[in-house]
Amino acid sequence: MKTNNLCITNTLTRKKEAFEPLHAPLVGMYVCGPTVYGDPHLGHARSAVTFDILFRYLKHLGYKVRYIRNITDVGHLEHDADEGEDKIAKKARLEQLEPMEVAQYYTNRYHAFMDRMGVLRPSIEPLASGHILEQIELVKRILEAGFAYEVNGSVYFDVPKYNASYPYGKLSGRVLDELLATTRENLASQDEKHNPADFALWKKAMPEHIMRWPSPWSEGFPGWHTECTAMSHKYLGQPFDIHGGGMDLMFPHHEAEIAQSCAAYGQEPCRYWVHNNMITINGKKMGKSLGNFITLEEFFSGKHAALTQAYDPMTIRFFILQAHYRSTLDFSNEALQSAEKGLQRLLQMKPALERVKASGNGSLSPALQQLSVDCYAAMDDDFNTPVLIAHLFDLAKMVNSAADNKAVFSEEDLAMARKLYQDFVEEVLGLSSSASEGKSQEVLEGVMDILLEIRAQAKSKKDFATSDLIRDKLKTVGIAVMDGKDGASWKQE
Amino acid sequence: MKTNNLCITNTLTRKKEAFEPLHAPLVGMYVCGPTVYGDPHLGHARSAVTFDILFRYLKHLGYKVRYIRNITDVGHLEHDADEGEDKIAKKARLEQLEPMEVAQYYTNRYHAFMDRMGVLRPSIEPLASGHILEQIELVKRILEAGFAYEVNGSVYFDVPKYNASYPYGKLSGRVLDELLATTRENLASQDEKHNPADFALWKKAMPEHIMRWPSPWSEGFPGWHTECTAMSHKYLGQPFDIHGGGMDLMFPHHEAEIAQSCAAYGQEPCRYWVHNNMITINGKKMGKSLGNFITLEEFFSGKHAALTQAYDPMTIRFFILQAHYRSTLDFSNEALQSAEKGLQRLLQMKPALERVKASGNGSLSPALQQLSVDCYAAMDDDFNTPVLIAHLFDLAKMVNSAADNKAVFSEEDLAMARKLYQDFVEEVLGLSSSASEGKSQEVLEGVMDILLEIRAQAKSKKDFATSDLIRDKLKTVGIAVMDGKDGASWKQE
Repeated sequence: MKTNNLCITNTLTRKKEAFEPLHAPLVGMYVCGPTVYGDPHLGHARSAVTFDILFRYLKHLGYKVRYIRNITDVGHLEHDADEGEDKIAKKARLEQLEPMEVAQYYTNRYHAFMDRMGVLRPSIEPLASGHILEQIELVKRILEAGFAYEVNGSVYFDVPKYNASYPYGKLSGRVLDELLATTRENLASQDEKHNPADFALWKKAMPEHIMRWPSPWSEGFPGWHTECTAMSHKYLGQPFDIHGGGMDLMFPHHEAEIAQSCAAYGQEPCRYWVHNNMITINGKKMGKSLGNFITLEEFFSGKHAALTQAYDPMTIRFFILQAHYRSTLDFSNEALQSAEKGLQRLLQMKPALERVKASGNGSLSPALQQLSVDCYAAMDDDFNTPVLIAHLFDLAKMVNSAADNKAVFSEEDLAMARKLYQDFVEEVLGLSSSASEGKSQEVLEGVMDILLEIRAQAKSKKDFATSDLIRDKLKTVGIAVMDGKDGASWKQE
Repeated sequence: MKTNNLCITNTLTRKKEAFEPLHAPLVGMYVCGPTVYGDPHLGHARSAVTFDILFRYLKHLGYKVRYIRNITDVGHLEHDADEGEDKIAKKARLEQLEPMEVAQYYTNRYHAFMDRMGVLRPSIEPLASGHILEQIELVKRILEAGFAYEVNGSVYFDVPKYNASYPYGKLSGRVLDELLATTRENLASQDEKHNPADFALWKKAMPEHIMRWPSPWSEGFPGWHTECTAMSHKYLGQPFDIHGGGMDLMFPHHEAEIAQSCAAYGQEPCRYWVHNNMITINGKKMGKSLGNFITLEEFFSGKHAALTQAYDPMTIRFFILQAHYRSTLDFSNEALQSAEKGLQRLLQMKPALERVKASGNGSLSPALQQLSVDCYAAMDDDFNTPVLIAHLFDLAKMVNSAADNKAVFSEEDLAMARKLYQDFVEEVLGLSSSASEGKSQEVLEGVMDILLEIRAQAKSKKDFATSDLIRDKLKTVGIAVMDGKDGASWKQE
């Protein structure tokens, strides 16, 4: 394992802390993943890319990371309530909406989009619906510990009672008394709860609820917060190292996770809480109701009123990485177009590195030596990708000078430049031009048109040497040229 | 929905029967999917491709298909038994093997390989480990119905008792008395069972078992057969239309499914049982112990002693489709090489169709009209893909003649030929050249080398008109040419 000075900003302490894994070289990381009842948008991409960077850099440092990112598929889809349970039961199962069919569809799409953005798959992607038994066990433990109560088949977490033993609100910096003051107005509609700050651990299903499972309390479904506690405990034990998610999940979701974990296991869930900041669109909050909600598919196709063009998945990734994950990130077409150019500048280092002719076996230049130190320092400083990218632009300048013979690279310089490109551009930042592979066939067709036109010109000038040369050379790269009445056509063998 | 005469060979009746969905236009299909503790091989591919064809053709006919293919991730992985449960419990969770990490790894690989082979994702892919509660409910129902018994925390299905009410062995054609006679020798080692033909519904976990869940009987895990009954019942109801799987699953797995379903719900699970036949390798059974076990990765890379070359995923798909799913399919390099050529012959119809110049608006030729009828007839006859492919080769001949101006296509002929290609080659058989997309970049580089060489020759002959033309035309397809001291280089913009 590489020695490192990695520091992570821990939301819990609001400090940048040295990263000390509990069981090095093993690292356990849990991140709140998508709810799969809709298409992923820029906010999903930012969270996925942020924790992909943590995953990649920790692995690059030599840690053996078990990365769990859950899929929330327990949706609160409802039947038409008028039909009632009896009528529904009489209908063929096939004629009913099956929530898992919807969940599977959006899960597949989420994977496909994230794959295109270079986001690595986590070690395990557990489904909430696949861990009902584990959630029931969790609720039982919390009840046994005396921090929950049952009302009419539903179970609620007793926040004031918990708060007497553990500080509730420590992650988000909220104080229970204030919470009570601000949420009292909702009390009337939640008359099963003893207290408005309490939250559901298990809910009895109303007749219109489709997803439902048997439990000791009722046929129903788990509360929103239980899945992450049950699944992180199952796959990572407690405490584990890093818990991540979007800043909007800090309260109430992550606060509830801490409470559930302390109540059930007498332990905090994790050492480091990491939260990525939000995306704004032209300075405004993004939201369906605001009409400025752009899905990844719309970004990739350019089909949205707010977009002036389509953006490559890798451009979106690079755009996200150009801001530190703890800063807000504002979308605009200008910002994305600038990201597109910046990404090309970095990726063009690869062919430029191929062109560099190293001369002499001099030693490593101090500038490149320093650059390597700076790249690690940037990532060690709470995964500071914008600073890393600035260093990589400096690298690009040096490489371009050497490729254009305006500067001299020794063998050691060239090896170091190649290693920095591979380690940081490809491995840690996960940037590549492979996402635009699909375009290759299209470009190939354009280039073949040109080549066959040149060949036709040569033939018309009776320059058969050239026309035969083109045909023979194409054969060596697997392309057969067929001459016909209406000109030549070609096919890949 | 298209009217059709679809017939399916039903293993249960051993007859080719007219397909009559229970709730047309809805169709429910359940297929036994992979066990994800190893890499997929040709046998997995055959089953996946077979039922992909059913799924595709049923959808092509206009049915709304809910296709469930499960993932068996409840593996019987064991700890080192010497450590005992207590020692294990003291170790950090992270230091232990997590079966779901292994399962996730192989699930991701299975998806990636099947995607490359053009296998569509099912509507829902439920995990066995995600449906423990549903399996426990199933076992409870079978116990309540009196067809199972509990011994030391394990629950067994009572086959002789069941056989008194329902015929056990009807799918595989076995008779219980014979089963008893042949399996009696194993009785000693299975002293919890009342009868050697009985099978486990729930097993109490030994200390060395890693995967375990709480249940009314013990902390343990479900028997092998329960997942498919519980999950098909959950997502399709009972009875549903089609249950598929490999022929090797007919006994005991599918026989047990029928018994569980009848015992718990008083109903057969489905109307049509469909089984794909096995793969042999050079005439011999395939098996790990026989050393002739070839994974899909080895086929795609060519890295296996038995392979003389690498095979494209689409070639493997086409090879599978060239045999009827109910016949055995024998692998040999010769057979695959011939499939490779055959596939190219079909796929080259696409560019040939582009070249055809239709003349006149005559009516549809009788030959093409008949071909369309024949294609449907082949698929309607128990999904007879080899016969369909033979018809498509006839189509290829006609198209090639028209493309080479040896025959005349009317506008109607051309439209029909295009429709047949799209419907049968692409949509129903799922064949495309897109799987070799990855090669395009490589071929593009080869072609660009040729074009830049031609341009260099033109320059050296002071034919600047040609060299400039090449540069300008390349710009229009998004390629910039940079002239340098050591010749020209290029980049995609």
